[in-house]
Amino acid sequence: MKAIKKGIAIASILAIATTTYIGLTPGAEAKREGDQIRNVIVLIGDGMGPSYMTAYRYFKDDPKTKVKEPTAFDPHLVGMQTTYPEDEHENITDSASAATAMSAGVKTYNNAIAVDNDKSEVKTVLEEAKAKGKSTGLVATSEITHATPAAFGAHDISRKNMDAIADDYYNELIQGKHKVDVLLGGGLINFVRKDQNLVEKFKKDGYGYVTNRDELTKNQSKQVLGLFASGGMDKMIDRNTNTPSLQEMTKSAINRLDQNEKGFFLMVEGSQIDWAGHDNDIVGAMSEMQDFEKAFQVAIDFAKKDKHTLVVTTADHSTGGLSVGANGEYNFHPESLRAAKKTPDYMAAQIVSGKSVQETLSTYINLDLTSSEIKSVQKVASKSKKVEDIDQAIENIFDSRSLTGWTTDGHTGEEVPVYAYGPGRERFAGLNDNTKLAEEIFSILGGTKGKKK
Amino acid sequence: MKAIKKGIAIASILAIATTTYIGLTPGAEAKREGDQIRNVIVLIGDGMGPSYMTAYRYFKDDPKTKVKEPTAFDPHLVGMQTTYPEDEHENITDSASAATAMSAGVKTYNNAIAVDNDKSEVKTVLEEAKAKGKSTGLVATSEITHATPAAFGAHDISRKNMDAIADDYYNELIQGKHKVDVLLGGGLINFVRKDQNLVEKFKKDGYGYVTNRDELTKNQSKQVLGLFASGGMDKMIDRNTNTPSLQEMTKSAINRLDQNEKGFFLMVEGSQIDWAGHDNDIVGAMSEMQDFEKAFQVAIDFAKKDKHTLVVTTADHSTGGLSVGANGEYNFHPESLRAAKKTPDYMAAQIVSGKSVQETLSTYINLDLTSSEIKSVQKVASKSKKVEDIDQAIENIFDSRSLTGWTTDGHTGEEVPVYAYGPGRERFAGLNDNTKLAEEIFSILGGTKGKKK
Repeated sequence: MKAIKKGIAIASILAIATTTYIGLTPGAEAKREGDQIRNVIVLIGDGMGPSYMTAYRYFKDDPKTKVKEPTAFDPHLVGMQTTYPEDEHENITDSASAATAMSAGVKTYNNAIAVDNDKSEVKTVLEEAKAKGKSTGLVATSEITHATPAAFGAHDISRKNMDAIADDYYNELIQGKHKVDVLLGGGLINFVRKDQNLVEKFKKDGYGYVTNRDELTKNQSKQVLGLFASGGMDKMIDRNTNTPSLQEMTKSAINRLDQNEKGFFLMVEGSQIDWAGHDNDIVGAMSEMQDFEKAFQVAIDFAKKDKHTLVVTTADHSTGGLSVGANGEYNFHPESLRAAKKTPDYMAAQIVSGKSVQETLSTYINLDLTSSEIKSVQKVASKSKKVEDIDQAIENIFDSRSLTGWTTDGHTGEEVPVYAYGPGRERFAGLNDNTKLAEEIFSILGGTKGKKK
Repeated sequence: MKAIKKGIAIASILAIATTTYIGLTPGAEAKREGDQIRNVIVLIGDGMGPSYMTAYRYFKDDPKTKVKEPTAFDPHLVGMQTTYPEDEHENITDSASAATAMSAGVKTYNNAIAVDNDKSEVKTVLEEAKAKGKSTGLVATSEITHATPAAFGAHDISRKNMDAIADDYYNELIQGKHKVDVLLGGGLINFVRKDQNLVEKFKKDGYGYVTNRDELTKNQSKQVLGLFASGGMDKMIDRNTNTPSLQEMTKSAINRLDQNEKGFFLMVEGSQIDWAGHDNDIVGAMSEMQDFEKAFQVAIDFAKKDKHTLVVTTADHSTGGLSVGANGEYNFHPESLRAAKKTPDYMAAQIVSGKSVQETLSTYINLDLTSSEIKSVQKVASKSKKVEDIDQAIENIFDSRSLTGWTTDGHTGEEVPVYAYGPGRERFAGLNDNTKLAEEIFSILGGTKGKKK
């Protein structure tokens, strides 16, 4: 913001003033601001509740200094948002309901992909952006048809229908055009199927198609479908070198979308922070936080140069009941987490495939494990060949060393932090409901939420 | 803020502008704002981390509506603060270190009461306010000599020295005057002791002295010492009718302090949110949140009328690894918590004193407990006469019914929400360290942090 012209800064200040202090008509405010905001980037850390932000700050901390250095997110905190769904049976949200709240501004049932409680389809901010002539993109490390991206670019009564969601990406046109210009993530099996091959269809319609980092880098088409795994992509620290990072996918998406002079809307999801949380895997969670933070930094760097880009970052809910510190001790030890070179899942799979426990642990954990730690995994591996059992035994070592606590393999209800940068950031200040995220973006785009026509 | 004059609002907006956008000298800003801020009220919910705010919103929720109604805190969220200490052995804070950060702007070791890591005494914002001619007050439901209030009004190398802390309240004069005008809370045994009677000394110096709600109401002296329990006060739902609530103590404190035309500084602590957290007692936690919320409302109501009062509310840390939802289920059920008429501790004490388990539970829990729930407590009570064992058995019922999770009987490291109302509230926006709270108040008072002279 330093380089912003003083005149614009004053206008922006008046915009804050109208909202927060004096209460002028929001219309006037939106008009002034609308000239400034050309692009909107929403980044969602799935499952990234408050304790993940703290754990990650400890994880990244430079132990040589007395302060805990801020993460890339920290300077941009503007508020928090509530996440509860409007569901008959559950009062803690799943990712589909929360993503629908954020994409369409509508509270709905768990499982719903941009449909209301009456199952009718609701318009998303991505669709509004496309209708206004902007380019659009979805980037994720899960299947690109998974709940969060799906709720921005598709409509379905159930998140489980990932084939139908892929169909929506292809079939649902806006003003005769495909509604998502850039699709990057996992989920090949939802596109190349027995019943049809959506990849071929997208290619026929002019989309580039890429399946690894090299191809992603070389391909120059404005519209692109990138599918880098049959299902979800590997977690960052488990990835091979020919798999793009979330940072690289985000950069590639922005480069393509930014060619539209009318601007763009992009949603980027750090999908697997949540998956690590479900697994109660603090090593995996830190890996995915790091992947997500780098993608966030790409968005911020772009917005700083561009000056007409709003970046909003938040989570859909928290996962796992993660606590920073546990078992009565007043410490959280990230050193042990930094010592992991792969996730416990990866190590467990190696052990199941026949590698010795001791060799596997010493290869992938840069720590002198105690004999009782090694034995605790050997004991499980001698009884079970299930990855999840051995995985849990390895996770126990990290939990115990780091003093990480968990209370559930599901979601929890805490409100989540909201970060915003760029013109319009003040709109997200304070404690809001997650539906406000969509409402504000609709307002910026000059539209309103509602049923899909 | 509605009634505020437009001229003042504009000044305030420019104050935001200088800080956030343009970067004018803070001095100019402080001067403009200093004219506006006569009183500062700091409310600290001990242990009140993010998940407590959510649990309490669910607890208060009107089930007849689809929305989760906001708590009194919600409209005033401006940011969050980090809480880590500067301690050789622990990287998660205790209440003493965190309170010193907030009272003096100094990171220090766990256990420290307004002393730095070198054990030297550091000036507190309460002392600065007194030196500037303002009236001052401390209100808590713990002993008034407990870590949080102590760090505002005393200095000691250890929070455990509560007698010495009481001595400090009496002995440490500022410009020849007692530094705390209003002291309301528990902790009689730290004032009336074998070696001396501080109550008599305070009375001799003109302080009113009160020990119950009636006396508190009737007493009109500007300076008052109110000690309502030998140690900590009872939790709100366990209190008898002649014990004042935190709300009443706060109101009484403000009425006395507001008689000084130079204004006042008041610190109010909801001390036992944390104690309930240590005990992993969700019923007690909700009771203390309610007590604290009502006190918060008193401060806000006063500030709304007064227009020259800044109210800042936050926590020192989170406690217990509380999660809203647990055990794999996507629900948090507050109904069972609302059904409790007393804390599990209170019920356990009744059982230990000879009351039957079944009768006690049916008297104090407005639910049809299952026979297995009743038996689970009977089983423990048949083997142990310890309150804590029976207490835990009762807590298990509430945890299991409500789906409350816990990971520790100690503190956790998550950053905590910050709420602010009134002139200067923008100073606390975003993610800050807990030392900033003191730094901003020093700046408002026209002083700076530093060693005590």
